[in-house]
Amino acid sequence: MGVTAPGGFVAAGAHCGIKADGAPDLALVATADGRPVPAAAVFTANLATAPPVQVSRRHLEASRGQAAAVVLNSGNANAATGEQGIADAERMCALVAAGLGCEPEHVLVCSTGLIGIPLPMAPIEAGIPSLLGALSTDGGSDAAEAIRTTDTVRKEVVVRDGGRTVGGMAKGAAMLAPNMATMLAVLTTDGVSETAALRHELQGSVADTFNSLSVDGCTSTNDTVIVLAGGGSGVPGELAMAMTAACGSLAEQTASDAEGATKTVWVKISGARSEGEARQAARKVAESQLVKCSLFGADPYWGRIVSELGTAGTAFDPDRVDVAYGGVTVCSKGIALAHDADAVRVHLQGRRVEITADLGLGDGAATILTNDLTPSYIDENMRTS
Amino acid sequence: MGVTAPGGFVAAGAHCGIKADGAPDLALVATADGRPVPAAAVFTANLATAPPVQVSRRHLEASRGQAAAVVLNSGNANAATGEQGIADAERMCALVAAGLGCEPEHVLVCSTGLIGIPLPMAPIEAGIPSLLGALSTDGGSDAAEAIRTTDTVRKEVVVRDGGRTVGGMAKGAAMLAPNMATMLAVLTTDGVSETAALRHELQGSVADTFNSLSVDGCTSTNDTVIVLAGGGSGVPGELAMAMTAACGSLAEQTASDAEGATKTVWVKISGARSEGEARQAARKVAESQLVKCSLFGADPYWGRIVSELGTAGTAFDPDRVDVAYGGVTVCSKGIALAHDADAVRVHLQGRRVEITADLGLGDGAATILTNDLTPSYIDENMRTS
Repeated sequence: MGVTAPGGFVAAGAHCGIKADGAPDLALVATADGRPVPAAAVFTANLATAPPVQVSRRHLEASRGQAAAVVLNSGNANAATGEQGIADAERMCALVAAGLGCEPEHVLVCSTGLIGIPLPMAPIEAGIPSLLGALSTDGGSDAAEAIRTTDTVRKEVVVRDGGRTVGGMAKGAAMLAPNMATMLAVLTTDGVSETAALRHELQGSVADTFNSLSVDGCTSTNDTVIVLAGGGSGVPGELAMAMTAACGSLAEQTASDAEGATKTVWVKISGARSEGEARQAARKVAESQLVKCSLFGADPYWGRIVSELGTAGTAFDPDRVDVAYGGVTVCSKGIALAHDADAVRVHLQGRRVEITADLGLGDGAATILTNDLTPSYIDENMRTS
Repeated sequence: MGVTAPGGFVAAGAHCGIKADGAPDLALVATADGRPVPAAAVFTANLATAPPVQVSRRHLEASRGQAAAVVLNSGNANAATGEQGIADAERMCALVAAGLGCEPEHVLVCSTGLIGIPLPMAPIEAGIPSLLGALSTDGGSDAAEAIRTTDTVRKEVVVRDGGRTVGGMAKGAAMLAPNMATMLAVLTTDGVSETAALRHELQGSVADTFNSLSVDGCTSTNDTVIVLAGGGSGVPGELAMAMTAACGSLAEQTASDAEGATKTVWVKISGARSEGEARQAARKVAESQLVKCSLFGADPYWGRIVSELGTAGTAFDPDRVDVAYGGVTVCSKGIALAHDADAVRVHLQGRRVEITADLGLGDGAATILTNDLTPSYIDENMRTS
């Protein structure tokens, strides 16, 4: 179901010809009547923003936060493609707008795939009309399929809260993947909202979920999260909780499907001087190549965690830090603590691992979701062709 | 020869019993007469400094920059070992001082190996007297052998400049390695110098060499570079050039021997707003897991380089950036440029790779030396035992 779970939305997905292997590569999500509704988005912090990000941002500004559709392609990121890339992204929006009968600035666009290669427009131009014809209230899963790159499964979510429904789909395998790239997510809801509130709620939801996820520390040129609020339920009120739940599920699905990963890992830092420092320290541990190697090996080498905390650029006193795996403390006040080694081993051999470090300096706490680093990750990312 | 190349220095290396496999694990470098000479050091920026770093720093302060010897062990980092670790490091210095007839604060100490495990003092206490007996003007290479951890070869250097000689040895395989850890280097010279000048010159040399090296972005708890200036040549004057040449050679030897690496890679950024921003941008590219995977695959995926530059936290305009491999420009003003693909492929398949990116914003330039990321790196680092 995903994005078509809330009433008032239709979607479709198909193979138009960007991917050589015949897999679905073009997706469309739209309001059922083709009319614009309140919309908001969060885009990549990368300064090398891809043309579709630039175009979507411009459209949202021009429309004052109203959108009727999102068109997405996989297999090519339309990034580092210059003016041609802008023209191609605009063309995708114009074709969809013509079909739906809305303005081009009411259409947003996302691309994911290889960087630096011009978008193959012929198959896209041919594909969009048939995609428009296939739009359906059952089309959510087809759309979710069509945005996959190295994702091994499609990612969808439905959250119901107080008479409103939030539906969503996402793709992401590395933050910036091999042949492919990027974390993209589209949310839809039948909740009644206005653009300003929706934007504020989306930003909060993303901060606590997608922005607390780090597969490899790489931020894509194309990362985009979009929400459309159709209002079909007739129920007003805050959507923050439901949106955070939806984004949280999609982020965890993404982490669990990260390229080559064998484990999903929660790095939880507490006792930092501030929440910001806790987040920074958690990110340093989560992105450490050596910590990630230990996790792949199910090796409780807490010395690497202490070492990373010492170089996180945040306040740190090695004589105060405690480290635990799965709740079993292995390091207390900076030195080894006798512990149940079997319990730690069993925990580390599982698919879901929790590392906690208490810095003993304050009340700041944060969690980053990550993975282990494996030979399969290298294998998937060493060549683009 | 290495550290015993300059007149006035002796060294030795032996197996005392820290390493289970019988490999050399204890080294000593000393002035031939056991008397202190001007000395300087640069230590890790990690806040979780290991006890030997704390003790060496304290000794250099107490002696006002005079040292007669450096004792080093491999196989155990004596890090995250608390008060016992401090006592053990002090004990190593005291034993050497007693043998040489100098004060304990005239002895510096370095350790490299596993973090979080108390130092096995019995073999070290037994080993130091025999090491003192083995000190010789031919002992440089034995000392260089004894500080190896996952290093596949020992690293030594001799530089002669204006009547003075600088000798050196180093170890390092990952910045913070698997069973083992850390980048350590000891330089000796017969140049005539004073502590203040020596310290200044060493800091400059390290900034341009060891601190421009990043194997995996991890900074060890034990990193240490020490220089002792014996004055035996009778020749005064600046030692900066010779020391930079010596450190440069050792850094490159270290990069070439990095764990599992198949390539040594120079990431050269020019056209940044400042040298600091150039260094930061070069480091972001050099430490990118995805860039490193591409390098292992000899894949000229410049899109990843542009993407990393966009998230380096420095000024960046994607429409101004040029990227080249081995001098062949593949991206001009942010988009693909037709180029000699064969030349690029041949360059990337070699052992020495050069990536250059001109940001087109200013005069800032910097180079970071790094490696590719390989399955062997993961294999070496996934388990400590």
